[in-house]
Amino acid sequence: MTDPSTSTDATPASQPVWAEEGIVQTYLAPLARGYAGAYGLRDDCAALTVPSGMDLVVKTDPVMAGVHFLPDDDPADIAWKALAVNVSDLASKAAEPIAYLMALALPGPPTHEWMKAFALGLEEAQRAFGCHLVGGDTDRTTGPLTISVTVFGSVPAGRMVQRGAARVGDLLYVSGPIGDAALGLRLRRDFTLATAWGLSPDRAERLVRRYLRPQPALHLRRVIASHASAAMDLSDGLAKDLGRMCRASGTGAVVRAADVPLSAEARAVVSRGTIGIADLVTGGDDYEVLMAVPRSNCMAFERDTSLAPIGEVVAGRDASFVDGDGKTLVLTRTGWDHFDRS
Amino acid sequence: MTDPSTSTDATPASQPVWAEEGIVQTYLAPLARGYAGAYGLRDDCAALTVPSGMDLVVKTDPVMAGVHFLPDDDPADIAWKALAVNVSDLASKAAEPIAYLMALALPGPPTHEWMKAFALGLEEAQRAFGCHLVGGDTDRTTGPLTISVTVFGSVPAGRMVQRGAARVGDLLYVSGPIGDAALGLRLRRDFTLATAWGLSPDRAERLVRRYLRPQPALHLRRVIASHASAAMDLSDGLAKDLGRMCRASGTGAVVRAADVPLSAEARAVVSRGTIGIADLVTGGDDYEVLMAVPRSNCMAFERDTSLAPIGEVVAGRDASFVDGDGKTLVLTRTGWDHFDRS
Repeated sequence: MTDPSTSTDATPASQPVWAEEGIVQTYLAPLARGYAGAYGLRDDCAALTVPSGMDLVVKTDPVMAGVHFLPDDDPADIAWKALAVNVSDLASKAAEPIAYLMALALPGPPTHEWMKAFALGLEEAQRAFGCHLVGGDTDRTTGPLTISVTVFGSVPAGRMVQRGAARVGDLLYVSGPIGDAALGLRLRRDFTLATAWGLSPDRAERLVRRYLRPQPALHLRRVIASHASAAMDLSDGLAKDLGRMCRASGTGAVVRAADVPLSAEARAVVSRGTIGIADLVTGGDDYEVLMAVPRSNCMAFERDTSLAPIGEVVAGRDASFVDGDGKTLVLTRTGWDHFDRS
Repeated sequence: MTDPSTSTDATPASQPVWAEEGIVQTYLAPLARGYAGAYGLRDDCAALTVPSGMDLVVKTDPVMAGVHFLPDDDPADIAWKALAVNVSDLASKAAEPIAYLMALALPGPPTHEWMKAFALGLEEAQRAFGCHLVGGDTDRTTGPLTISVTVFGSVPAGRMVQRGAARVGDLLYVSGPIGDAALGLRLRRDFTLATAWGLSPDRAERLVRRYLRPQPALHLRRVIASHASAAMDLSDGLAKDLGRMCRASGTGAVVRAADVPLSAEARAVVSRGTIGIADLVTGGDDYEVLMAVPRSNCMAFERDTSLAPIGEVVAGRDASFVDGDGKTLVLTRTGWDHFDRS
């Protein structure tokens, strides 16, 4: 596809961009406008000003072709996801996004068309999330395309909401529907599944969008800060990430499978019988936030969020899912581990 | 090589480490001790406290097997280099290291032996540079081993020393000998060159160490802050990086090739005639600092550093190297560009 706005340039859209500095100054530097400490991406470092009385919350979560996205995904979607998965962590810590660094490892010189679409996706994402590109690095790799974003946000000093501070008796909530992205990934790989699952192309496409364009729960930032005892974002599946919250907190948890929120599309798929709730809570890529809320805050939390609890933090060490009869569901896998033996 | 201290464990040194959390909690979490905001690497984010009145200087510079180090380098050397190349940037900005994030992309589960040596190299480096690991990520990659460090340092607010602030008339200095690492890399690939170059094994080994274990010029931090108008670290060769300083500053520069400091080993190699100064200033991997110092500060700067100027910032746009007769040296390549056509 040729973009008419560039096809008459000296550098046609389908031509490769040679030289690191061409990539940086043509496509990335505009994303640094508006943040003085980025020095127009002309320096080797950036300077962040952290308001007095605030801590800086930092996180790096690289995404890689073939693992976190598909190599032929739209570059704008890839860019969005690379930033969104990091901002999702900030949201869960009740941190306000400020800025990010991005290290690009490219298998070869990208085309102008690719870089333009990629930069557009980043621009959309940083506008949506309220942060600026302030620096980074561009390398050629013999491996897959990898985008390593490091994101910076601010919280009042000492007030970062932790993963490991859940307490027995807290109720558990998730910020939105679980499992859509896992279904979306399957559809992205084989769209004929839509028919098997009884989904119209539009509804199937919605699930694919949930995989391609995660939406960090930044709208919950304030309510997390004021009401949650612990929070984390969900990247590797609710089951696995809940287990992590439990381990870090020294607690167990019980989740009522029937109370895990599902989208209308996911409910329709589950009703067909081939995909079960166990597949959805172990699927990963949700980028919703898991929150533990002390009972004394639950009424205010629910009023502010319209969310309903999915379970409870209990004594012990296990995170389990129970059905309507209180029987524990057996999960064949508990989510994604990059070095799992299984 | 089997490490006797672990060979009697339940997990022999040569066994692979399965599961991300094993890598993080066994080998990396000890590196986070002493920094409260790292939460023992049990959280998804870290919280940095930036002292009031200070800016945070941030930088990410990933290193990759086959590009920035050799896959069979000692894991301790790889770890040292991954952190050192980033801290070198902080040094050049007159920033004091605080902390770093590290995203590891591993081609497969590492052995306990490898992880142990890697963690040891990191520990040596962070102790030498005065910073702590505060977070990161571990992924499996189909590509080469990649270590993406993001480093954080502090400078008085608004006082980060920039690359693009050199002024016509400033004198130019480098923090140490140029070209050792380029020679060291060649020796690392083919140690028989030592004989051809007339170097004893010990002297050749010194050059290899300069490649494997760059030493960030943190000792110059204060003098850079008080005397330099501009500074940057040298990663892609003096010629190329000087060109970058010139472009960012809107100036030219003239360097007297004979005044570029060389180690005794590099001088010995150059005296043989096959390697010239042009190879050394375009070789890369120096991780020394290039500084532009206003003439009014030069006396104090030289007194504090014992460095001698190598050239001068001039009007124009070109960075050139001249010989003893004032003739411009022709450089066949100006350093390393990951997307260079040549």
